[in-house]
Amino acid sequence: MKTAITPTRDENFSEWYQNLITAADLAENSPVRGCMTIKPYGWAIWELMRGEMDKRIKANGVLNANFPLLIPINFFNKEAEHVAGFAKECAVVTHHRLKMIDGVLQPDPDAKLTEPYIIRPTSETIIGEAMSRWVQSHRDLPLKLNQWVNVMRWEMRPRLFLRTAEFNWQEGHNVFATHEEANEDAIKMLNMYEEYMKNVLAIPCIAGEKTPEERFAGADHTYTVEQIMQDGKALQAGTSHDLGQHFAKSFDIKYLGPDGKLNYGWTTSWGTSTRMMGGLFMTHSDDDGLVLPPMIAPYQVVIIPITREENETELNAYAQKLADTLRNMDVRVLVDDSDMRAPDKMWKWIKRGVPLRIEIGDREMADDTLTVTRRDLGKSSKQTVKSAEFISSVKNTLDTIQHDMYESVLERNKHMITEVKNLSELESMLESGKIGFFRIKYDLTTNAEFDGLIEKYKISRRCLDRQDHSFVFIAKSY
Amino acid sequence: MKTAITPTRDENFSEWYQNLITAADLAENSPVRGCMTIKPYGWAIWELMRGEMDKRIKANGVLNANFPLLIPINFFNKEAEHVAGFAKECAVVTHHRLKMIDGVLQPDPDAKLTEPYIIRPTSETIIGEAMSRWVQSHRDLPLKLNQWVNVMRWEMRPRLFLRTAEFNWQEGHNVFATHEEANEDAIKMLNMYEEYMKNVLAIPCIAGEKTPEERFAGADHTYTVEQIMQDGKALQAGTSHDLGQHFAKSFDIKYLGPDGKLNYGWTTSWGTSTRMMGGLFMTHSDDDGLVLPPMIAPYQVVIIPITREENETELNAYAQKLADTLRNMDVRVLVDDSDMRAPDKMWKWIKRGVPLRIEIGDREMADDTLTVTRRDLGKSSKQTVKSAEFISSVKNTLDTIQHDMYESVLERNKHMITEVKNLSELESMLESGKIGFFRIKYDLTTNAEFDGLIEKYKISRRCLDRQDHSFVFIAKSY
Repeated sequence: MKTAITPTRDENFSEWYQNLITAADLAENSPVRGCMTIKPYGWAIWELMRGEMDKRIKANGVLNANFPLLIPINFFNKEAEHVAGFAKECAVVTHHRLKMIDGVLQPDPDAKLTEPYIIRPTSETIIGEAMSRWVQSHRDLPLKLNQWVNVMRWEMRPRLFLRTAEFNWQEGHNVFATHEEANEDAIKMLNMYEEYMKNVLAIPCIAGEKTPEERFAGADHTYTVEQIMQDGKALQAGTSHDLGQHFAKSFDIKYLGPDGKLNYGWTTSWGTSTRMMGGLFMTHSDDDGLVLPPMIAPYQVVIIPITREENETELNAYAQKLADTLRNMDVRVLVDDSDMRAPDKMWKWIKRGVPLRIEIGDREMADDTLTVTRRDLGKSSKQTVKSAEFISSVKNTLDTIQHDMYESVLERNKHMITEVKNLSELESMLESGKIGFFRIKYDLTTNAEFDGLIEKYKISRRCLDRQDHSFVFIAKSY
Repeated sequence: MKTAITPTRDENFSEWYQNLITAADLAENSPVRGCMTIKPYGWAIWELMRGEMDKRIKANGVLNANFPLLIPINFFNKEAEHVAGFAKECAVVTHHRLKMIDGVLQPDPDAKLTEPYIIRPTSETIIGEAMSRWVQSHRDLPLKLNQWVNVMRWEMRPRLFLRTAEFNWQEGHNVFATHEEANEDAIKMLNMYEEYMKNVLAIPCIAGEKTPEERFAGADHTYTVEQIMQDGKALQAGTSHDLGQHFAKSFDIKYLGPDGKLNYGWTTSWGTSTRMMGGLFMTHSDDDGLVLPPMIAPYQVVIIPITREENETELNAYAQKLADTLRNMDVRVLVDDSDMRAPDKMWKWIKRGVPLRIEIGDREMADDTLTVTRRDLGKSSKQTVKSAEFISSVKNTLDTIQHDMYESVLERNKHMITEVKNLSELESMLESGKIGFFRIKYDLTTNAEFDGLIEKYKISRRCLDRQDHSFVFIAKSY
């Protein structure tokens, strides 16, 4: 059977992904090394994803703010682990002027900065510096901040959405009076991420704590939500860090307690990024293209009038009227009355993953019916229903699709997690090419052997099992 | 009379502005030269401003997208005027790694970029490159794109909001088939800005075309909305450019016409930024602090329960109930039940410009009344009204405030525009220290004399009179 995307997932998952992004017109590589351009359809999805996330962040009493893009180089010297983790591959600003020299535009030697700046790879340091001034008394705590910004980490092997030098994200940064409060809040935000993945992206996650090897540079505890892709690889969709007092001590974030004593604060940070979009696309899409959960679909319904020259005006008007009705019910709807051929239109919107596709021709108009297909179920779901019936149930139908998509991934994931008894069993499975997550007893005494396998099979410790900390999930990852 | 902000506007407008920003907790200077940190209250205003602008941009059929932060240096060589205008003071990225050398973290000499990047000062070039690929046929036109991003222009004399090295903005970039269409759309977007300033920010503008000297680097026509500040200076709040075929030719943006011929496209760009916030604050605020139009006030109503120890629980609950009622009517409301003293709370929210302030004490609770003060009118507007009456009219009251604020600035502006007959009259007025805008006959033959005055009095041509192009507005400016 011919598919809209070639190769198929089975044939070559990685190439399929690349072609999916192009076919759905989501993004493209830019002339800037490792940086992508997010095209309008991709950005519209991000705006919806961001809106849902922002609502949740604010509901947790977090305030948005905006900190500088550039970070003075010496800020990275203040936290030793952090500098090792983040100050390596980054964009360095060294000059503040260009000059035409011998006909070539170049950095003006007279405009060299005394101290270079780094384009933020993450903002713990610059926000830490502000917090040291904003936090004075226990009355200022908790201080919970977030920003939606672009960050940059020089990437050697970029892939659209999954790993790009520049990416957009939200980063929450917080100060608490006690370690307990800080840790609780870090876990609360992890739970929020898990709920978001479930209810907004229709993706079940494995949530848990990272092992020490995989912790954020400068954290006491790193919590993570891991998604299982269709090829069995892991994608880290969001992390939440209990930073202990590392940054509070490096940046001198202190508060006067009710007892009149000065104490260091306890900080946390948490973030999710456009990387989630890569996870979303790789989780739900099929060999015909994108499949979008209704919650974040720019168009939840597309109406395609099957016109002939004689009925074009009437049919388009009829379609627009239906669209208006749906819009009044807060359904995001598009009438594709462009001059493409009807089959081309259908494939266009199949590839772009619109949850519900409606075709209207003469027959439908005469009978007051609509021919409706669910993107997640495909052709087999195609049916002709009375217009009134469709309209009265459309909200429920969209909810059902959202729910079904989640359940379907949940079911698939069951076959993607394998219990293994010990390292030699794990090795023979990896050797045989078995894909997915492996759940295995986590014993620090065998960590050296673990490291050997990790090196050999390019796998990694994803996270400890949340229910039983003596187990760890292992997988290949994006 | 003691004012919340010292010095007052009359005493020292520029220092008053600085202290206003601090008193209302809007933003602060950051450790990064010329860059500011926008604090949560300031950012909340920006989010509302951005939301209203974004709605209008989308209503004009423009699609949001996201282009890279960095621009290859050679892109600036492609458009000669543009390079002269923008490639001068900008942040240059020359390295992609840091290294600890002799105990000092510094750019790694082994990680020097073959070709440096510039942090975008504006994105005509990088978007132009994409458009050259995205535009192929007349069917792809018009292509109307926008992005909400941060940009950077190295500023030698930064001022919070008004002029900062990094700032947030929206930049629209568009391609049309004909010059007429492009020019019309540039003017249409200018009109949108003017409508936005009026209906959202409650600020009357002078809209018109820039003279050739003040045009955007690489434009055929630059249109502008100019605001008149309380000290008579101009603030350019937004611009819209008809770029002719400059960028289409530099970046090879061509389309196949219906006649089968290849034509260059015609491009436009338009933008507004966080700079508008500076204009908003300088236009509406008074010697007691910020005054916010209800449309973009993070809290439209603040409720201050005047509690004593005995009634605290009951009064706070009563205030919360009122707040819930208002929230259900989509009014943004805050109950300040913090443990500050009541007068401190009042001053806090006066300084932050909340449009309506409600005080509730024992008396009000017993009588089912509220004591209400309008921020824009001040103490004289304070009155005690029945709660039900307040609730039923609150939406109207907010609309009235919005409208009154606009009218009040419109009235003030009348005294800020002076007709002058000729250059010698202009000079004697400037010499006498008269402030505001001057409307004067614009004659290219006297341009040299103009230049003399401009140099001497640090004034500039703001824009041509829209009604009569043979007149120009002259003013000092921010």
